[in-house]
Amino acid sequence: MSGRNKRTSDAELSVLARPQDANTIGTIFGGRLLEWMDMAAAICARRHTALRVATVSLTGVQFLQPIRVGQVMDFRACVNRTFGTSLEVQVVVFAQDTYRRKRELAVIGYFTLVGLDENGTPVAVPIFEPQTDNEIERWRAAELRRSQAADAEAPIFDA
Amino acid sequence: MSGRNKRTSDAELSVLARPQDANTIGTIFGGRLLEWMDMAAAICARRHTALRVATVSLTGVQFLQPIRVGQVMDFRACVNRTFGTSLEVQVVVFAQDTYRRKRELAVIGYFTLVGLDENGTPVAVPIFEPQTDNEIERWRAAELRRSQAADAEAPIFDA
Amino acid sequence: MSGRNKRTSDAELSVLARPQDANTIGTIFGGRLLEWMDMAAAICARRHTALRVATVSLTGVQFLQPIRVGQVMDFRACVNRTFGTSLEVQVVVFAQDTYRRKRELAVIGYFTLVGLDENGTPVAVPIFEPQTDNEIERWRAAELRRSQAADAEAPIFDA
Amino acid sequence: MSGRNKRTSDAELSVLARPQDANTIGTIFGGRLLEWMDMAAAICARRHTALRVATVSLTGVQFLQPIRVGQVMDFRACVNRTFGTSLEVQVVVFAQDTYRRKRELAVIGYFTLVGLDENGTPVAVPIFEPQTDNEIERWRAAELRRSQAADAEAPIFDA
Amino acid sequence: MSGRNKRTSDAELSVLARPQDANTIGTIFGGRLLEWMDMAAAICARRHTALRVATVSLTGVQFLQPIRVGQVMDFRACVNRTFGTSLEVQVVVFAQDTYRRKRELAVIGYFTLVGLDENGTPVAVPIFEPQTDNEIERWRAAELRRSQAADAEAPIFDA
Amino acid sequence: MSGRNKRTSDAELSVLARPQDANTIGTIFGGRLLEWMDMAAAICARRHTALRVATVSLTGVQFLQPIRVGQVMDFRACVNRTFGTSLEVQVVVFAQDTYRRKRELAVIGYFTLVGLDENGTPVAVPIFEPQTDNEIERWRAAELRRSQAADAEAPIFDA
Repeated sequence: MSGRNKRTSDAELSVLARPQDANTIGTIFGGRLLEWMDMAAAICARRHTALRVATVSLTGVQFLQPIRVGQVMDFRACVNRTFGTSLEVQVVVFAQDTYRRKRELAVIGYFTLVGLDENGTPVAVPIFEPQTDNEIERWRAAELRRSQAADAEAPIFDA
Repeated sequence: MSGRNKRTSDAELSVLARPQDANTIGTIFGGRLLEWMDMAAAICARRHTALRVATVSLTGVQFLQPIRVGQVMDFRACVNRTFGTSLEVQVVVFAQDTYRRKRELAVIGYFTLVGLDENGTPVAVPIFEPQTDNEIERWRAAELRRSQAADAEAPIFDA
Repeated sequence: MSGRNKRTSDAELSVLARPQDANTIGTIFGGRLLEWMDMAAAICARRHTALRVATVSLTGVQFLQPIRVGQVMDFRACVNRTFGTSLEVQVVVFAQDTYRRKRELAVIGYFTLVGLDENGTPVAVPIFEPQTDNEIERWRAAELRRSQAADAEAPIFDA
Repeated sequence: MSGRNKRTSDAELSVLARPQDANTIGTIFGGRLLEWMDMAAAICARRHTALRVATVSLTGVQFLQPIRVGQVMDFRACVNRTFGTSLEVQVVVFAQDTYRRKRELAVIGYFTLVGLDENGTPVAVPIFEPQTDNEIERWRAAELRRSQAADAEAPIFDA
Repeated sequence: MSGRNKRTSDAELSVLARPQDANTIGTIFGGRLLEWMDMAAAICARRHTALRVATVSLTGVQFLQPIRVGQVMDFRACVNRTFGTSLEVQVVVFAQDTYRRKRELAVIGYFTLVGLDENGTPVAVPIFEPQTDNEIERWRAAELRRSQAADAEAPIFDA
Repeated sequence: MSGRNKRTSDAELSVLARPQDANTIGTIFGGRLLEWMDMAAAICARRHTALRVATVSLTGVQFLQPIRVGQVMDFRACVNRTFGTSLEVQVVVFAQDTYRRKRELAVIGYFTLVGLDENGTPVAVPIFEPQTDNEIERWRAAELRRSQAADAEAPIFDA
């Protein structure tokens, strides 16, 4: 099993921000953005692995800019690192004002998905080998997030 | 007003074909595909024109391959030709089976949209100048579709 | 297999134009209208054929009037002509302003669907025999659209 | 203000029962049916009154037959009686199996809506005068439901 | 089969009233409320019976207060009475204005559902034994609604 | 501005897992769960603050158990800690199999929202004072997550 070129696994998704996705002051609900981000992450992971995939965790989501009705949202998903049977996919969302030809980073988040065979059993995914400088930096940061997650405390809740 | 490079106006949209978009035999409804195609066309037209846009006609839609739940649908919209205040945008849909890394042309259609100013009045759109061989061929075919549409008979219906 | 009376296969669908179906300036998205038109066409084709059906092409869609939130949309589908295993269904949409009791033609389009048996194989559909003057005119115009479609150039796209 | 002919206010709505509207055993959710019934009632009331309308009560809903994915649902709304500023609209739903050309009554319910002016104040609605035998019977039954509703106990609930 | 404590079968559902659920004047559609009420009733009935359930009738729905976009809707479902294979579930909806910390009863309705085994055959549901004063009053009122429904006239409609 | 009791700000949301929210193998999409979790967090934050709120970050989401169509999902949101103009809300999701009366923790995640005045400017939120042992533990863990987030590296992406 050799590493794959990231280009063919990248997922892009341009969506018009519509009134049905907005709150009362005309900005898009975080929950709707998370739903599209998860779909972009899943498409990217399926393209990289050629397997069924399931999201197992999500971390580091930052909503940096509100997105307004009428803007175009560009979702971009790419693989950051593979870990045996799982992989981290980064999703960034740009908000584009087509009238002013302006485009800003609006949201970022890190999804971890697991590769599954036809019976739903986790299986090894093709290794991702970073090549560009950005890819190498993202590959390192992914490891850091993974070790922090392992150190996290157990959930505390009222049953 | 000079011609613009088509690259920055292209719209791409990768969507997972889900059960909620399918009929009883697991293939995606034509109506759902048309909705996404229209959105991709609108994003492309907005990027090319930096104006508000409205769809005024649609022709030549062919559903060449059924798309199945679980496949990834790639919508690709690009400008074919401009006609004063309107432009023709071509949308193709590829169905990708990520398990077999296979990808086929599934749907094609030709949308005409008009550029509008803030009052909703049609205004001239930036001219599209074809450059590659494919662009030049599509630019010629767009003119042919336009002249056929002009020759079409008036609608006949019971009021 | 004899011809059937068009009355029992006609499909009607009245829908309130709601904010969730509208763009930022309060008019209904073309893509949403196309989705409902496709459903009306499918119901009409199923009623005429008593078979499973699938949309294979769509042509001549004209958005003549914008439809506003709060208007009632009347979708009307009727068979225009049968061609062996396929049939052309015409869908018109009227926009009704119930406050002023006014009603206008807003959209028209021509869907071609194929009849399928339980295995998905195309099968002959019951012949439609036009009777009224309008039906005979629509029957003739359907043949013209069919021959134009057969002459259309092959799609040109970047793979 | 004179009575109006019921024909022009009737609302019809044919919808294909789709997987997205069904529960796990392939029958359509009651809640989805109620949503479409309410829309049909509102369209009928708007056509009769040429006013804004709001649903104020609903009674006597009976789900007589389960509706299956793949069937065509015919919603039919008609005015039963007017009461000053309000009117009762009856909605029946037929489930049609287009393969067997069979059609059965599936659901019935009685909606009461109020007519509103532009400020949201209730205003008198045009009187409905029943003409056919069925209309006269329904007109009488509407009065009976109204008097029963007036006798109903106040709601009992934990605040 | 002994009676069950109502607490564990109660269903609560807090939902933000969003633009996509509203009409043109910013109040939530009755049809959308009915859809959520039906879901709350079904969850409550499933919790009480541990069976599959289907809604068979609905009566006494009153829309007492319009609900505005931006308010929080609290749906509360509880069992009122069991009748052999069926049970009546009451659903109330409170509209909460979180800015003013104010909360009002907005809608009430009474759903009857039937318990089903795996083959869809009605089966006896666990008996509900009312304990608090409110529960006893609701238990009595449920019987009254049931006898009125039994006396109702048959539906009258044009086939 | 004094601390408030957590009880009145808790948000509960029970939803039936439906086919329309599921992938091809009958389990609910992570993206749909995130959308509901975000809504529950927003309702909880609005109840605690009596302000407008916006989600600014999300971390530590773990999908511990797949949720199947037909199960009841219980979303529970509660305040963990306040930080000046923002607050952390914890959302847990339980999956309930009503047939077996079994219930398991399925998802957990930590949302940070900011309180906004009518102009969209961040304003101080009412202080949350933990009282029970669980509340005190969650209050401590929230501070830890906050300091980790502050240490996180800047996003790395291709513009």
